[in-house]
Amino acid sequence: MNKILVVGSVGYDTITTPDGTRTGILGGSANYFSLAASLYTPVQVVGVVGDDYKPEHRQLLESRKVDIRGLQTVHGKTFAWEGKYEKDMNDAITLSTHLNVFEDFKPSIPEAYKKSPVVFLANIDPVLQLQVLEQVESPKLVAMDTMDYWIRSKRADLLKVLQKIDVLLINEGELRQLTSTWNIVRACKEAMALGPKAVIVKRGEYGFFSYYQERYFVLPAFPVESVVDPTGAGDTFAGGFLGHLAQLGRGWNREDLKQACVHGCLLASFTVQDFGVEGIAAVTAGQLADRIQAYQKVIS
Amino acid sequence: MNKILVVGSVGYDTITTPDGTRTGILGGSANYFSLAASLYTPVQVVGVVGDDYKPEHRQLLESRKVDIRGLQTVHGKTFAWEGKYEKDMNDAITLSTHLNVFEDFKPSIPEAYKKSPVVFLANIDPVLQLQVLEQVESPKLVAMDTMDYWIRSKRADLLKVLQKIDVLLINEGELRQLTSTWNIVRACKEAMALGPKAVIVKRGEYGFFSYYQERYFVLPAFPVESVVDPTGAGDTFAGGFLGHLAQLGRGWNREDLKQACVHGCLLASFTVQDFGVEGIAAVTAGQLADRIQAYQKVIS
Repeated sequence: MNKILVVGSVGYDTITTPDGTRTGILGGSANYFSLAASLYTPVQVVGVVGDDYKPEHRQLLESRKVDIRGLQTVHGKTFAWEGKYEKDMNDAITLSTHLNVFEDFKPSIPEAYKKSPVVFLANIDPVLQLQVLEQVESPKLVAMDTMDYWIRSKRADLLKVLQKIDVLLINEGELRQLTSTWNIVRACKEAMALGPKAVIVKRGEYGFFSYYQERYFVLPAFPVESVVDPTGAGDTFAGGFLGHLAQLGRGWNREDLKQACVHGCLLASFTVQDFGVEGIAAVTAGQLADRIQAYQKVIS
Repeated sequence: MNKILVVGSVGYDTITTPDGTRTGILGGSANYFSLAASLYTPVQVVGVVGDDYKPEHRQLLESRKVDIRGLQTVHGKTFAWEGKYEKDMNDAITLSTHLNVFEDFKPSIPEAYKKSPVVFLANIDPVLQLQVLEQVESPKLVAMDTMDYWIRSKRADLLKVLQKIDVLLINEGELRQLTSTWNIVRACKEAMALGPKAVIVKRGEYGFFSYYQERYFVLPAFPVESVVDPTGAGDTFAGGFLGHLAQLGRGWNREDLKQACVHGCLLASFTVQDFGVEGIAAVTAGQLADRIQAYQKVIS
């Protein structure tokens, strides 16, 4: 069982969906990721919060045995995002982003984290992702996420990160933007040529498409009748995906990668069933096992 | 092995995709459907063409043992559609539609066709679909397709057809339009309440979602690296789907329905690999068997 280091955002979200509005609820890629991955293996978090960050939100991660010694507290306000979803739950509309203390964030990896064998670079500035990779000591598996904003504005830095990682987790629209290619098979091949050993394309309610060793593997998402809030689904996917691989405590092969994708998909289906982190925070190992069974029926 | 009666359009298409333009090539839902379904079972076609319809296009269906005695020839020009696809191959942009002889089409079912146990009502005016159902003699399985235009303009007639059929084949956007519901699980339930025993939602490159006996089943499409022309993919899906069920020559159960969807998906993957009907017209049983194997690897 390997530990995972995650570096990402920690923040407060205000989210409106057809089911209502929630103001200032816990969010951030590092939180969704940690709550998912900690179902499998110990997780170490690096991020930054302001002095308004609530003790109960530290306790939530600690209750899942997540190591939050790397969560810096800085004078100021915590990162805040406001967004809404309309009918199409695959696309968030950003209403406002306040970087706050995240604006001057420099990831500082505690000594106790530097030997972490698995590293997840959540969707942050590729310059910061590079700083993380300079501080860690030869991890066995590095995965990253990114977004349209960095693809447009920091492409050169992003390309440097891509050369240093093993797995690119990216959503379909962003993969197309990264490669300027619409067809998913061709786009994956082009992304592989940029460095990663595997590309995992997140397709929201349509599931995922993975490409590894010149073969692809594709499965639908677990169908959820009541999608309340899709925020964090991608980070939850990453948490289930890397959590499964890290838990193996050894090298991974094609079959492991497939199973990891399925775990990512199924955990994401819990996240979208409630606002914010409520869905993923409440999942038990038994519920996950039940959903794995239900999923096998749906795709058998 | 049961015969299938299909009633649909037969026409000439002019299609532009990123791979080029083809002018006046064979098209129409009945042609795509027949070429696919005839790989499994005998097919009988009802449609209308003008006196410009080429003998080689009758011969193409005849070479696949399709019974075209129900293809009326009327003085005038054959139905013609012009469309293009840009990057997103899931959506056609219609440039022109000339109904021509199709404008006054009244489906007349030949005596030899009336006892056909399986009926496919391709995407035509629901008033005509009702006329077909009045002429056939208690088929065991009736499936239908429709489109946004009929959902908007002929809703009352469409609802009458829905009460008389077994399987609704519909694409995702049109299902949402029919039910005014975005979520696919809920939309399927609402569509079921309108009459059909099963709903099969076609999702283009994302595959299909099927709903039957209060359970759903979902699989991705076979990934195609080079999508040349997606025209007819939905009718090809219907042909593979009903062809498989008709070939069984007995009642169908949940497992049959799943297998039928897989056949539909895989045949559609041949159609999109070439312009017009070229892809589906060239498929051999051996190629289909190979693709079934390849698909099992991709989703295993």
